Order: sequence, then structure tokens, then C-alpha cells
Amino acid sequence: MSRTEVELVEAANTTFYETMERGDFDELSSLWLDEGISCIHPGWPVLSGRGEVLRSYALIMANTEYIQFFLTDVKVSLAGDTALVTCTENILSGGPAEESGELGPLVGQLVVATNVFRRTSDGWKMWSHHGSPVLAESDEEEDDETPS
Amino acid sequence: MSRTEVELVEAANTTFYETMERGDFDELSSLWLDEGISCIHPGWPVLSGRGEVLRSYALIMANTEYIQFFLTDVKVSLAGDTALVTCTENILSGGPAEESGELGPLVGQLVVATNVFRRTSDGWKMWSHHGSPVLAESDEEEDDETPS
Repeated sequence: MSRTEVELVEAANTTFYETMERGDFDELSSLWLDEGISCIHPGWPVLSGRGEVLRSYALIMANTEYIQFFLTDVKVSLAGDTALVTCTENILSGGPAEESGELGPLVGQLVVATNVFRRTSDGWKMWSHHGSPVLAESDEEEDDETPS
Repeated sequence: MSRTEVELVEAANTTFYETMERGDFDELSSLWLDEGISCIHPGWPVLSGRGEVLRSYALIMANTEYIQFFLTDVKVSLAGDTALVTCTENILSGGPAEESGELGPLVGQLVVATNVFRRTSDGWKMWSHHGSPVLAESDEEEDDETPS
């Protein structure tokens, strides 16, 4: 596995979140593959194709005044021209201002994501994003119901 | 895109769910790649590597008396040796019997999944599974807050 290639994938993954933070819809559009893409936002159904996926980001950006992602546990798995990235998104976000010049209330959210990238002649492009809410710690599965 | 190849991927995806329905841990283990795998169950944090991933399935199988998946909206996107499958899992499941010979109460659940497969000399193997609860219909995002 090429170290440099992993770094390029990590950079593409970071760029995805920084573009969301800046609310730059045009750049976000350029980060995705031309076809075959899919996206699942936390709690949402599946969105398929550039039309549905990009429209969802336009809606999210229109309703988000402020958003910041603190990424942890970023892991990259490379195979051929595909890269699979998992990470934890520690999100701080706020809706549109309730009064002129003020942010809406800030909300913290814990989301885990699987991001799939394809290597193209124009760099690593997003093929799939799937984010989901973390509802419980993994330790909680270790209960006493396991048959002995 | 080869029609036959898409059918093989669909078959691998179906086999994954049928193996879960049968609770066949050994076959489930054989469906995953040897390395680089990740898995996110609905509401769970990221699990990485065969140790964590397969242990989670052993725990789930031990605590699931009955599970049936009705798959809808299965979509396959192929690129090189990687296949990306999205689908909706309409799940009916029940925990261990509360009295001898009886099932626990059956629970319905709506989950959307992104499954990533790699082509190997031994057929299509799972690289990643990410399932998440559907909390709202996509129509609900079309509110009136979008700036005109």
C-alpha cells in the first residue's frame, strides 16, 4: 500500500468536510464522481445519482448557518483504484439566525461515516458517503444475554 | 458494465442477508475479505478488522432468535474490481424466547445500507457494511426554510 496514496485519500476526505464547513456548493459538486454515486445522511433514506445527492446538499447548506467537523479515528483501506475511509464526525452546527446577526442554537452531534473514493485522472473523487448517528457505545452490547 | 457481473454482485448481496437469516456464523465469516474490512451496525460506532466485525456478528446472532430481511431498492454501481450496493432492509426480528418454545416479541425496523464488495479469485467478498436507521422521510426536508 503506497503511503503517498493513503495521504492523498486522507486529503480528499478532509477537503470534503472543509468544503461543507465553507458551504461551497460548486466545489462540493466537483468532488463527486459523474455517475453511480450514492449518499445517505444520518437518519435519511438512500439518495442516488448526482441530481438527488447534490440537491440534498443544497438544502442542507441553505438550512445550516454554521457547521464544523472535528474528525477522529480516520482509517483508510486502499484496494486498486478504490479507497474506503471510515471516520467519526464530531459535529457542531447551528441553524439560520433567529434574529438578525445571531446564530441559531448550536447543536453537537456524533456521526460515523463510511466514505468511498475512486481514483480518477483528476484525483480521488467521492463515490459514496454514508453517515449515521451513534446511538449507543459498543460496550453496551456486552450484556449477560449471551448463552453460556 | 457487464450484466452478468451485476447479477453476481446482487447474488453476493442476497447471500449476505440469507446467511444472517440462517444465523450461519461460519459462512458469514467466509463472505468477508481477509483484511481492511469495516462494519457499522445501525446506531453503532465503527468496527474495523475481522476481529471486531465478526465478534459483533457473533453477539448479534446470539441475541437474535429470528430475523428476516425484505430487501427493496437494491442498486448496484460497478467500477473495476469494486461494487457498491445500496439497499433498504425491511427487517422483522425477534429476541430469544421468553418462555420455552416461544419467540420474543417481533420488531419491525427500517434500515438503509451501503455494502461494498471486492472481486477476488473466490468471487465477490464484502469489504464494508454500513447500516443506519431511517428516521424521517426524505420529503420532510422540503420545508419552507429554503431562502427564496
